[in-house]
Amino acid sequence: MARTLSVTALEGIGEVAAGDDLAAVLSTALAPLEPRAGDVVVVAHKIVSKAEGRVVALAGVAPGPGALALAARLDQDPRQVQVVLDESAAVLRTERVLIVRTHHGFVCANAGVDASNVPGDDTVVLLPRDPDASARALRAGLRERLGVAPAVCVTDSFGRAWRHGQADVAIGLAGLRPLQDWRGRPDAQGRTMRATWIAVADQVASAADLVRTKDAGTPAALVRGLGDHVTEDDGPGAAVLLRPADEDLFL
Amino acid sequence: MARTLSVTALEGIGEVAAGDDLAAVLSTALAPLEPRAGDVVVVAHKIVSKAEGRVVALAGVAPGPGALALAARLDQDPRQVQVVLDESAAVLRTERVLIVRTHHGFVCANAGVDASNVPGDDTVVLLPRDPDASARALRAGLRERLGVAPAVCVTDSFGRAWRHGQADVAIGLAGLRPLQDWRGRPDAQGRTMRATWIAVADQVASAADLVRTKDAGTPAALVRGLGDHVTEDDGPGAAVLLRPADEDLFL
Repeated sequence: MARTLSVTALEGIGEVAAGDDLAAVLSTALAPLEPRAGDVVVVAHKIVSKAEGRVVALAGVAPGPGALALAARLDQDPRQVQVVLDESAAVLRTERVLIVRTHHGFVCANAGVDASNVPGDDTVVLLPRDPDASARALRAGLRERLGVAPAVCVTDSFGRAWRHGQADVAIGLAGLRPLQDWRGRPDAQGRTMRATWIAVADQVASAADLVRTKDAGTPAALVRGLGDHVTEDDGPGAAVLLRPADEDLFL
Repeated sequence: MARTLSVTALEGIGEVAAGDDLAAVLSTALAPLEPRAGDVVVVAHKIVSKAEGRVVALAGVAPGPGALALAARLDQDPRQVQVVLDESAAVLRTERVLIVRTHHGFVCANAGVDASNVPGDDTVVLLPRDPDASARALRAGLRERLGVAPAVCVTDSFGRAWRHGQADVAIGLAGLRPLQDWRGRPDAQGRTMRATWIAVADQVASAADLVRTKDAGTPAALVRGLGDHVTEDDGPGAAVLLRPADEDLFL
């Protein structure tokens, strides 16, 4: 039988604010699709962050000298630059955009701090403090409400070295296998496969992004057909997708 | 209506050899799915390369001094290293694996030269010489046989900086929009979105990889539901996804 995957945008998710019960919101949006245990719910981090109150009003931010200097050079709001610096463990590039390593270990532009799709001109959204914990909490909440526990994948859109455009990646996971390792297994000709180590969760994040529209209220999607990659336990999370700088073959 | 995407593995594609009519092979595999104009056919480059004869018997390769030195250091077959060097415009890293820029401009491990899933111990598969041209030729062949012209996306699995594992990307395209640009458009709150430039084709490649298995004969998939991104003309191809090194924010 042909292996088929389906990806469906969740409709009817309105604006999310600090303290909202996101598991309840997602459960309502999922109900018409009759969620099952092998499903994956993919959620853009922005609504997770908003529900968790990871939002900063720029009016209350006092930029330091470092932020002021970078902001002048990059033609950015120095308060927003200060927020980016606060979210960063290391600043890697400052030439045209701030490329940083966040406290979580993600290497991305502006530490994932984002002003788009936020009500009010002076508010920015941060990444969740612990996206794997966010995913686990959401999964537990879905299990409670739905009686089944689809996997949860929290995503962000990251730029890439060497290639134009952004692709969504997994920044938080519960119950979805992050990586599938075919290395050392025999292929169809009995040869050992040498370099096949698949970032399953990042590919799931990318697949889900294809049904979203950036200007409308579709921050979540249901992916069905990946039961082989969904586990009863929450697993190691997206943190294992991070490659330490000293192991990086590309740097 | 909920926006839904489906991804289905194409069954029954056997071993492909030089000179095979790949459009005919794919047409047969697609027929049960009743392909339509807005569909995307995603094809792992390996069968494209094989059909095009982009296969090298290592017995006929004489490694030069550079290949011999690198092979000794990396514990690799010097003949295969010579093939990698022949496919490379620049060698970027040599510490644990060869990271190169290919003549096409792709930055990847081993110039995409791969020995897995190849019959015979001493044969390696190269990337297609011009993957965009390969995609256009396949699309024309499908149009001729099917009466409709689904888009064609030729893929390879690339490692990424900073993240573990590989994700599939588009290396050849015909009729699929490579990038979608939301920059400068207003978001739901009327704010201008600053950095939303989506690598649609790479995300399609990743979505398709999720239904493939690396050890079995599923080198192609049909993606349905992306009609908005499929164009009548073949478009600019995957070459526009390449970011020139001097514009790279991550390097």
